[in-house]
Amino acid sequence: MIVVLKVGATEAQQKHVIAKVKELGFKPHPIVGAERTVIACIGDDRDKAQLQTLGSLSYVDSVMPILKPYKLASKETTKERTVVKVGNVAIGGSQFVVMAGPCSVESRAQIIKSAEIVKAAGAQILRGGAFKPRSSPYSFQGLEEEGLRLLAAARERTGLPFVTEVVTPSDVAMVADYADMLQIGARNMQNFALLKEVGRVRKPILLKRGMSSTLKELLMSAEYVMSQGNYDVVLCERGIRTFEEYTRNTCDISAIPALKELSHLPVILDPSHATGLRSLVIPVAKAGVAVGAHGLIVEMHPKPEEAVSDGAQSLTPPQFDKMMSEIKKYLVIEGKHL
Amino acid sequence: MIVVLKVGATEAQQKHVIAKVKELGFKPHPIVGAERTVIACIGDDRDKAQLQTLGSLSYVDSVMPILKPYKLASKETTKERTVVKVGNVAIGGSQFVVMAGPCSVESRAQIIKSAEIVKAAGAQILRGGAFKPRSSPYSFQGLEEEGLRLLAAARERTGLPFVTEVVTPSDVAMVADYADMLQIGARNMQNFALLKEVGRVRKPILLKRGMSSTLKELLMSAEYVMSQGNYDVVLCERGIRTFEEYTRNTCDISAIPALKELSHLPVILDPSHATGLRSLVIPVAKAGVAVGAHGLIVEMHPKPEEAVSDGAQSLTPPQFDKMMSEIKKYLVIEGKHL
Amino acid sequence: MIVVLKVGATEAQQKHVIAKVKELGFKPHPIVGAERTVIACIGDDRDKAQLQTLGSLSYVDSVMPILKPYKLASKETTKERTVVKVGNVAIGGSQFVVMAGPCSVESRAQIIKSAEIVKAAGAQILRGGAFKPRSSPYSFQGLEEEGLRLLAAARERTGLPFVTEVVTPSDVAMVADYADMLQIGARNMQNFALLKEVGRVRKPILLKRGMSSTLKELLMSAEYVMSQGNYDVVLCERGIRTFEEYTRNTCDISAIPALKELSHLPVILDPSHATGLRSLVIPVAKAGVAVGAHGLIVEMHPKPEEAVSDGAQSLTPPQFDKMMSEIKKYLVIEGKHL
Amino acid sequence: MIVVLKVGATEAQQKHVIAKVKELGFKPHPIVGAERTVIACIGDDRDKAQLQTLGSLSYVDSVMPILKPYKLASKETTKERTVVKVGNVAIGGSQFVVMAGPCSVESRAQIIKSAEIVKAAGAQILRGGAFKPRSSPYSFQGLEEEGLRLLAAARERTGLPFVTEVVTPSDVAMVADYADMLQIGARNMQNFALLKEVGRVRKPILLKRGMSSTLKELLMSAEYVMSQGNYDVVLCERGIRTFEEYTRNTCDISAIPALKELSHLPVILDPSHATGLRSLVIPVAKAGVAVGAHGLIVEMHPKPEEAVSDGAQSLTPPQFDKMMSEIKKYLVIEGKHL
Repeated sequence: MIVVLKVGATEAQQKHVIAKVKELGFKPHPIVGAERTVIACIGDDRDKAQLQTLGSLSYVDSVMPILKPYKLASKETTKERTVVKVGNVAIGGSQFVVMAGPCSVESRAQIIKSAEIVKAAGAQILRGGAFKPRSSPYSFQGLEEEGLRLLAAARERTGLPFVTEVVTPSDVAMVADYADMLQIGARNMQNFALLKEVGRVRKPILLKRGMSSTLKELLMSAEYVMSQGNYDVVLCERGIRTFEEYTRNTCDISAIPALKELSHLPVILDPSHATGLRSLVIPVAKAGVAVGAHGLIVEMHPKPEEAVSDGAQSLTPPQFDKMMSEIKKYLVIEGKHL
Repeated sequence: MIVVLKVGATEAQQKHVIAKVKELGFKPHPIVGAERTVIACIGDDRDKAQLQTLGSLSYVDSVMPILKPYKLASKETTKERTVVKVGNVAIGGSQFVVMAGPCSVESRAQIIKSAEIVKAAGAQILRGGAFKPRSSPYSFQGLEEEGLRLLAAARERTGLPFVTEVVTPSDVAMVADYADMLQIGARNMQNFALLKEVGRVRKPILLKRGMSSTLKELLMSAEYVMSQGNYDVVLCERGIRTFEEYTRNTCDISAIPALKELSHLPVILDPSHATGLRSLVIPVAKAGVAVGAHGLIVEMHPKPEEAVSDGAQSLTPPQFDKMMSEIKKYLVIEGKHL
Repeated sequence: MIVVLKVGATEAQQKHVIAKVKELGFKPHPIVGAERTVIACIGDDRDKAQLQTLGSLSYVDSVMPILKPYKLASKETTKERTVVKVGNVAIGGSQFVVMAGPCSVESRAQIIKSAEIVKAAGAQILRGGAFKPRSSPYSFQGLEEEGLRLLAAARERTGLPFVTEVVTPSDVAMVADYADMLQIGARNMQNFALLKEVGRVRKPILLKRGMSSTLKELLMSAEYVMSQGNYDVVLCERGIRTFEEYTRNTCDISAIPALKELSHLPVILDPSHATGLRSLVIPVAKAGVAVGAHGLIVEMHPKPEEAVSDGAQSLTPPQFDKMMSEIKKYLVIEGKHL
Repeated sequence: MIVVLKVGATEAQQKHVIAKVKELGFKPHPIVGAERTVIACIGDDRDKAQLQTLGSLSYVDSVMPILKPYKLASKETTKERTVVKVGNVAIGGSQFVVMAGPCSVESRAQIIKSAEIVKAAGAQILRGGAFKPRSSPYSFQGLEEEGLRLLAAARERTGLPFVTEVVTPSDVAMVADYADMLQIGARNMQNFALLKEVGRVRKPILLKRGMSSTLKELLMSAEYVMSQGNYDVVLCERGIRTFEEYTRNTCDISAIPALKELSHLPVILDPSHATGLRSLVIPVAKAGVAVGAHGLIVEMHPKPEEAVSDGAQSLTPPQFDKMMSEIKKYLVIEGKHL
């Protein structure tokens, strides 16, 4: 931690800061520059509350942490890449994992049809929402537990494990009973009660980046889950909110290699929510392979024009086939496989 | 709803859209322009899922809703301004309401001292966090129910009602037992399970704007609470996330008169989180009065340099007194009172 | 400057960085922490190019500058507030300065009428655009030099000095011949050739913040003007671009007290562009007074519904009168005067 | 254009709007809904000033344009993709074009060395800055005309045409004398005087997206150049400004296929400025191929640790070779060639 004093801070004030720094358990090293004094502090500065305390002194200009605030999720502490198993599927190694299916589970026929299409095209995990976080209370909210049963039926038919979103702590145990992987949606990335709860189950977690979350915040949310004992976390870039209006979100494509630099956890891309426009899903999915993502999560609907949600960004079955065949060519180059 | 067809859409495609529009329950009015055809549709277009369905047709350029997606929160449906009572305090009328206190409840002495300072300065509601949503799992997470008991003790001592945050649905009943007003924090503004739950209690709700939420989304979240039967919602601007780094957030000051144009619900300002810097809190609090806010929620700590959280943005007791005396002068001009 | 080495940097690498630091003219102080080594460097770190050089070494994690990159504009070097004179009007002291008028100069009658209304209401400077930066090449581009002549005629009639925008270096001398103050618009805040050119004239400069510029960048642009010898710079907050769509821009109200903390230059607010909606201009103008702005620049048009540009955000004459009478009440409290 | 009236607008007000609409040259079609009336207007609504005029009426809720505001740049008017020739290089067809070189021209040896490395690796166009827009007046500002001469010398030696930035209208003719392609930098994307000037030369233009510009605004800036007669415009995505701090900018990767949907102009990607971090340049460059860019512009420096600018994002020569060999594999799949 570096404490920067204001220009003109007196010697008494410097001494006071130094005393405070010691009180907080750090070892201070004052460095007197031409215009300012800075105090370098040796110690573990991961707990930000302590830093804020110093920042509230009137003669302190700023307090700059040096250490990354996350430990368990950091590549500095764990060099080897983590591989997360979902059923027989391994995310984070040389297998490239495609999770696909409709936004919402709508009916038995729809989800089974979806699973069959997805499997036939070579994808390995089925996705489908049973609990839907919708911005309007008047929109379809999902089939809830019935949706989970239908997903399980589709799994039985096709053998595909499934991932589905859980939106509140009291549902976690029930969703974990059915699902192979639990998704934390973008709007819940900082729902800390929910993060703690999924940290206590023995199912892998798909953690989506919040729409205005920094990479550091995403990794802090992974840290929440991991701090409860669940180390099987997969990170997901799904677009962030910017001023651009043409797309639903802005796909932060470099977040994927950046997260791989910062963390040992697997990272996948959601090209459907990142763009919100079906015509952009295939090129962005390919970009995901290009930047080294460990997989994709993609919306595909047997009949998008009849979907109860996200129809405009869902691929049709032929488009999904096209996407799979295009990414396969890239995977060969990258030395990966489905 | 206006459906804009792509340039070059065929007559058959137009007919198909018109049929779809009827199927969805709207009355279509095609208007043929020089370059494009648009189809104006009469009906209630508040349910976005239906719109997305049309947007997924390849020859549709865009679908533009006309009606605001919220009803209960809208000024179009309720002309009269809502006044929300918290104990004896009325928010939304000519009384200007100041809620103040520390970020976190830390101890009995600290919260009682805070309540006394706050009351002596003329504020009407005590604030203090018992359940703290913290971005790091290693930071102080709040005293939980013990914190609620201490807040109740401070209320007993001073007569001030209190507002405190609730972070998960299963805590709602317990928090509502103690508190006079329940706060939904910025990170939970789209925690829909939580919104529904607080919609079912009979305590007023302080709903903070999410850090990357539009005004429309804030009003949709209010609609969630109201759709469950709880109409006592107070909106709160608390700064949004932008590229600017000098302040913790960017205070969207015009959101306050904008929300008053769009909704009948009371609107208050949080100058502490909006800026994150103590030196900016007083001027921004005054700006809140200037733009017509119905009140403020402000962080004040008896000893900010010892605060376990948000020390750098908490006012000291003398600064809080100064803020109160400055806003009082403005309130006289505005024909309002504490 | 603080150079943070990566975890695991070898001793040889540390020595190399230390040698590089000396080569760049800094005095290095290595500090060995439990996990990382940081090297504090004493010297003037304002030139960022040097920092980037170190950042490109593979075993350097980050380089953090300590000094603010601007000198002439900084309050650290000049404690006393600068007062800028525009004709007889003094911006930056106890006089609160209102600049008002139409977006574009449209005709002799329109600009003279505007000047008379503006003066009668108590404003001290006329504004009006002769060179209009328009996002569409098909929109009205301004009357150019004829517009300057009409502004001069309005000045002759009313005695009001005027401010007008200059958009390209080759026009600077001509515009400076007519105008009392030259405006650099938001889109040109980083048009460095233009900044240098207006730095060489002896007319005060109104420098508007770019729509995605940080406060630091705004001050760096002021530094450009000042580095050429023109110290009469007035800063202007005019709203920044965010994800919010209800308003044209988001008014960053706390930028005003923040800029007053960072710089000795006067700071004014443009509530018209900051909001883009006439109904929000008056409350936001009052907020400007509340946060300590030295003045306002406001769009007023004799007949907004006939304006060739910015009609939707221009006040009508009665609204402008109302704004002036409302801010006057606040100015009394603040010990300021028109 | 669709004019949405406020709820409760009277019949007289409707008639007034209809009359105004006719006055502006549009044919009005009023549509009476259950809650609101909207007036669809047939005609060319590209001139936004007219729309704003209607929006300033107190009983109009909003005015929604239907037509895209750009014509010459639009794919709706020109179906065939434009191919821009730079020397013998064709941008926009099956040739994938790599422009590479240092941020700044620093010396004869440096730029000639750069050109040789670039050519040997298979790139087709040399880049290098002679006029540098720098945020600090104290940073290196470029070698100016001497830099152009050195670029010309490098072209003579290697045969590579070169692209270089022009920052002010009065330099356009001179820069066009030397350069094969003129670059408009991100900070000048809305420097309309400069856009008009480069619209009058007969050299192709590389137009970089402004850091907070929408795709629509980028296309409007292209329209400025084209409206002066210069149709040879290449668009460039180079990252936009967001809240994320890990990277210098956020690469909006889906902007590339989106711009190809909206416009017939070629689109390239700048992975260096989009990320600002050398380690992310290669993956993002590959993503550019994946999404269908027509080329790349990349910073490469013979010795990045000695660069006077942008060292941290410049590739080393071996890294540049690696990038070229990796994208070649993707180009084969895409049926493109260097």
